[in-house]
Amino acid sequence: MPNDGVPRELLRRIRLVVLDVDGTMTDGRLYYGAQGEAFKAFDVRDGHGLRLLQLYGGVKLAVLTGRRADLVEQRCRELSIDHVVGQSRAKGAAIERIAADLAVPLAETAFMGDDVNDLPALRKVALSCAPADAADEVLREVRWISLRPAGRGAVRELCEVLLAAKTGWPPPEPEPLPAG
Amino acid sequence: MPNDGVPRELLRRIRLVVLDVDGTMTDGRLYYGAQGEAFKAFDVRDGHGLRLLQLYGGVKLAVLTGRRADLVEQRCRELSIDHVVGQSRAKGAAIERIAADLAVPLAETAFMGDDVNDLPALRKVALSCAPADAADEVLREVRWISLRPAGRGAVRELCEVLLAAKTGWPPPEPEPLPAG
Amino acid sequence: MPNDGVPRELLRRIRLVVLDVDGTMTDGRLYYGAQGEAFKAFDVRDGHGLRLLQLYGGVKLAVLTGRRADLVEQRCRELSIDHVVGQSRAKGAAIERIAADLAVPLAETAFMGDDVNDLPALRKVALSCAPADAADEVLREVRWISLRPAGRGAVRELCEVLLAAKTGWPPPEPEPLPAG
Amino acid sequence: MPNDGVPRELLRRIRLVVLDVDGTMTDGRLYYGAQGEAFKAFDVRDGHGLRLLQLYGGVKLAVLTGRRADLVEQRCRELSIDHVVGQSRAKGAAIERIAADLAVPLAETAFMGDDVNDLPALRKVALSCAPADAADEVLREVRWISLRPAGRGAVRELCEVLLAAKTGWPPPEPEPLPAG
Repeated sequence: MPNDGVPRELLRRIRLVVLDVDGTMTDGRLYYGAQGEAFKAFDVRDGHGLRLLQLYGGVKLAVLTGRRADLVEQRCRELSIDHVVGQSRAKGAAIERIAADLAVPLAETAFMGDDVNDLPALRKVALSCAPADAADEVLREVRWISLRPAGRGAVRELCEVLLAAKTGWPPPEPEPLPAG
Repeated sequence: MPNDGVPRELLRRIRLVVLDVDGTMTDGRLYYGAQGEAFKAFDVRDGHGLRLLQLYGGVKLAVLTGRRADLVEQRCRELSIDHVVGQSRAKGAAIERIAADLAVPLAETAFMGDDVNDLPALRKVALSCAPADAADEVLREVRWISLRPAGRGAVRELCEVLLAAKTGWPPPEPEPLPAG
Repeated sequence: MPNDGVPRELLRRIRLVVLDVDGTMTDGRLYYGAQGEAFKAFDVRDGHGLRLLQLYGGVKLAVLTGRRADLVEQRCRELSIDHVVGQSRAKGAAIERIAADLAVPLAETAFMGDDVNDLPALRKVALSCAPADAADEVLREVRWISLRPAGRGAVRELCEVLLAAKTGWPPPEPEPLPAG
Repeated sequence: MPNDGVPRELLRRIRLVVLDVDGTMTDGRLYYGAQGEAFKAFDVRDGHGLRLLQLYGGVKLAVLTGRRADLVEQRCRELSIDHVVGQSRAKGAAIERIAADLAVPLAETAFMGDDVNDLPALRKVALSCAPADAADEVLREVRWISLRPAGRGAVRELCEVLLAAKTGWPPPEPEPLPAG
């Protein structure tokens, strides 16, 4: 796993993971019908990883998007992600509020994003992350880059790296597992 | 065909094939609209292979998913897959029940899955299978790995390998064939 | 263009092109919602090629699918494909009827398909065609194989090859063109 | 960035960018349901680039499609693209009208398109552009070719190249940014 260069101590310290949506949890495709955006495509193994990270790693999860959050809410409910922040035009300020609301310091927070508007938030957290296919400006700055692209395993790999440092991966007793 | 290492005798013995859905019959994308998951994308040639496996190989089919099964049911009806088990959090126990219900011993059962929550079921069957793009933990354990990824031919290849061992592939009289 | 081996005279003779749908006009993905199959994904440049083939090449078009045709009809109307045959389980017999209905001999007919159930029809026409990602059994038999996969340019390339032999490609006066 | 060969002076001069939709802003897939075309898939980073090009580059935007525009309108509203021209069968004439309506000379206009029916418009503008996966006939003629395919960053790259020549890329003060 490509956590070379990220000290295990930092990985173990992370207690909050915040995720951008489009281009991070999805592959960036926005499906529009006549009434506007109609759906988003998430990855089943990303979801499974997030559930395991909560259950076995004790990590809190939040979602931070510059767009409307309604297409995200159902998926976040399934994944027990309570903190969903939409319509955010200033992600740097937003991630400070999220961390404060969840009572986790930014020094124990990770954020994954893919585009230049994610940079202000990425610069504030202890562990800045990006999918393999993020914008060059993001890839140049973040601390950890997934080997996998957005919506196709980038989030899952982060979950595995964190769990590997915290409790071991895969979890020792894989059954019964929640739906991913 | 990459059935090297799987004895032909084992392939011929298989009378029940059980399939995971997301990441096995589909490419793992979960399409969410405002009302939750809206649809899944199956592969037409996977479906055609399953129909041929039933008709010419006399193999029973079942589907086992950790998620809701309603988006799967219509497709399964088309493919004459009667046994659909959803919401399963303990796939090891579930596959034992499926095999018992269909009166086929696990020693004559194959299961294809792609993620760590499939491992308990994969460990119970005689022929454990995975798509080419399954999680590493699964790829390390299964007996047979498709050359093709999930939702893009992995299931079809399994059907071909089984039919090749049982009656020959492609079936000698390809017309009339049912819709795939 | 990869029409090497297909005599120009044969290409010029073709007056009817019949197309399979799933895995030929689409990439083979079947999108299912709670009410069954919900939509199909066609390629805009395939469509544009078909319009040009009708207008400049004087070629008739038909569609032949083993599945329900309702999701195809709207697209076919747009492309002025009048002859749409669905629910066909015996494509060999069906293509004979299509050619008879349209008063074009099979010796002047092309068919593109991707799976073993297309073989009976492929064997009856003068110009059998397949997308680059067709099943091996089909690739072994057909006369012409596109360099491009299904739903991503395979149909378009056939249109170009036929028009190149008939009247030249691209058409000399590209404006005004119909919507693709 | 692959703006080699395009003089920086030309890039700086561009005050209007006109975009084809299918195969340029999207990957060319047309999703059809029983009622006809149901939705299109846009790219979130393309959208973000267009917003930045308007805000920081002062560039006007328009969309020109040979197909119905209703599935495009909602996305264009989000991106503040006021000028949407649909049902255009003669794109050469249409781009002249668009430029006249927006009071920008064609010598200061860019157009990106992917297929032969875009050629008449591409030939009229000062900066003709194409995605990496455009039709060969288009790739042979245009002045600038993106390294990225349609619907996966081609439009974004054009925005970056233009902004890099005009004001620098990325914009110096990335927060607050509008939703992409």
